[in-house]
Amino acid sequence: MSVFPETPFLGVLGGMGPLASAQFMLRLTLLTPAARDQDHLPALLWSDPRIPDRTAARLAGGEDPLPWLVRGLRGLEAAGCGAIAIPCNTAHGWIEGMRAASGLPILHIVDAAAEELARQGIHAGPIGVMGTAGTLAMRLYQDRLEARGYSCLLPTDEEMAARVSPGIALVKANDVQKAYAPLAEAASALKARGAAAVVLGCTEIPLGILAGPHAEIGLPLIDTIDALALAALRWAGR
Amino acid sequence: MSVFPETPFLGVLGGMGPLASAQFMLRLTLLTPAARDQDHLPALLWSDPRIPDRTAARLAGGEDPLPWLVRGLRGLEAAGCGAIAIPCNTAHGWIEGMRAASGLPILHIVDAAAEELARQGIHAGPIGVMGTAGTLAMRLYQDRLEARGYSCLLPTDEEMAARVSPGIALVKANDVQKAYAPLAEAASALKARGAAAVVLGCTEIPLGILAGPHAEIGLPLIDTIDALALAALRWAGR
Repeated sequence: MSVFPETPFLGVLGGMGPLASAQFMLRLTLLTPAARDQDHLPALLWSDPRIPDRTAARLAGGEDPLPWLVRGLRGLEAAGCGAIAIPCNTAHGWIEGMRAASGLPILHIVDAAAEELARQGIHAGPIGVMGTAGTLAMRLYQDRLEARGYSCLLPTDEEMAARVSPGIALVKANDVQKAYAPLAEAASALKARGAAAVVLGCTEIPLGILAGPHAEIGLPLIDTIDALALAALRWAGR
Repeated sequence: MSVFPETPFLGVLGGMGPLASAQFMLRLTLLTPAARDQDHLPALLWSDPRIPDRTAARLAGGEDPLPWLVRGLRGLEAAGCGAIAIPCNTAHGWIEGMRAASGLPILHIVDAAAEELARQGIHAGPIGVMGTAGTLAMRLYQDRLEARGYSCLLPTDEEMAARVSPGIALVKANDVQKAYAPLAEAASALKARGAAAVVLGCTEIPLGILAGPHAEIGLPLIDTIDALALAALRWAGR
């Protein structure tokens, strides 16, 4: 008999970007009710920032990330993981390919965001969605939120080009302070158009938003890093 | 020929505690010169908070952590890591056993702290060392710093019992805010006794110290999480 208990690890397929993955591990830890190390969740983070850019693959003919995603999944499966969390919204555009390649359950980040909307008492109304151009083009949020009875408000093409995409790139370059203003402006524009809440549907966005006075934006913001961490804790029965 | 480049992953043997491991990943990312995801280091974090308490094992006959540490090392080796960083000072008391079980180089956190002292221009003088009771009893810092010509100042038994050990336990229970005061008081006491700098020689301690107005302590503090992240970046040639 092994000395080791059978509790499986949570597998975290990350590096997309690496700061968002690290923040996911931090928030997973801080959201866990724990009095000592041994109360926390065992977790393995596969942080491979070399995974080809998801938006470039979808919109600009860039290298396919799927073989890299599958490599990480298989590494996590071999190491003893029981479920997978992927703290990158855009990567969920390849979820069918990943599910075909691995038997492990994948906790879907859009479902986690929808559960967080409900948990915060937001059951209807237009929901603003900020994300990468790839995530919005693949309708990752629109289809799943509309199936739950929400309608979606998206940034305009101009807002994407001038605010959301540059804000995301600044976080990937470690410049979270500078990322705040363009991201907050994009969220405020969605509020002005009637959003009841805004989903920060790219895991870089909460890092930029949290680096500034985000309470001033004045509407509920759904942090998809926290939402996915809470989904992982539910999977683990915490 | 594989589609994947041969760059090895940095292996991070963590979960001791999990917040310190997550902070290590965050600092490793933020300390990397990078303009986009693909410029960052591939890294695997094995976060197993169930690894038996190191201080209890050394001082109170608790369960031996070595089989758990070796399990993590072997998992990281199998997944394709090229070197190991362990963001837990006390775990380095088992480094001979770990080195006997794995061929991977282990970046020693005490050497990383000593390199950080030198990088900050501190080449002599009494160095205050805060750590777990296990780390101090095993002389992990004293022997290695004295070999480099430093002398060491340690908290008294009363300071350990009333300030350092409770501060560390508060971080492990996610209460970084409350951890600040006792940890800062212990650092100030070492300063009052003549320390030229204080090594935060337990990876929970920087988390507590950074949660409060640490500049007020008024002497160089060596953050062993940052020191180890910088050593990992040197290993990777960054």
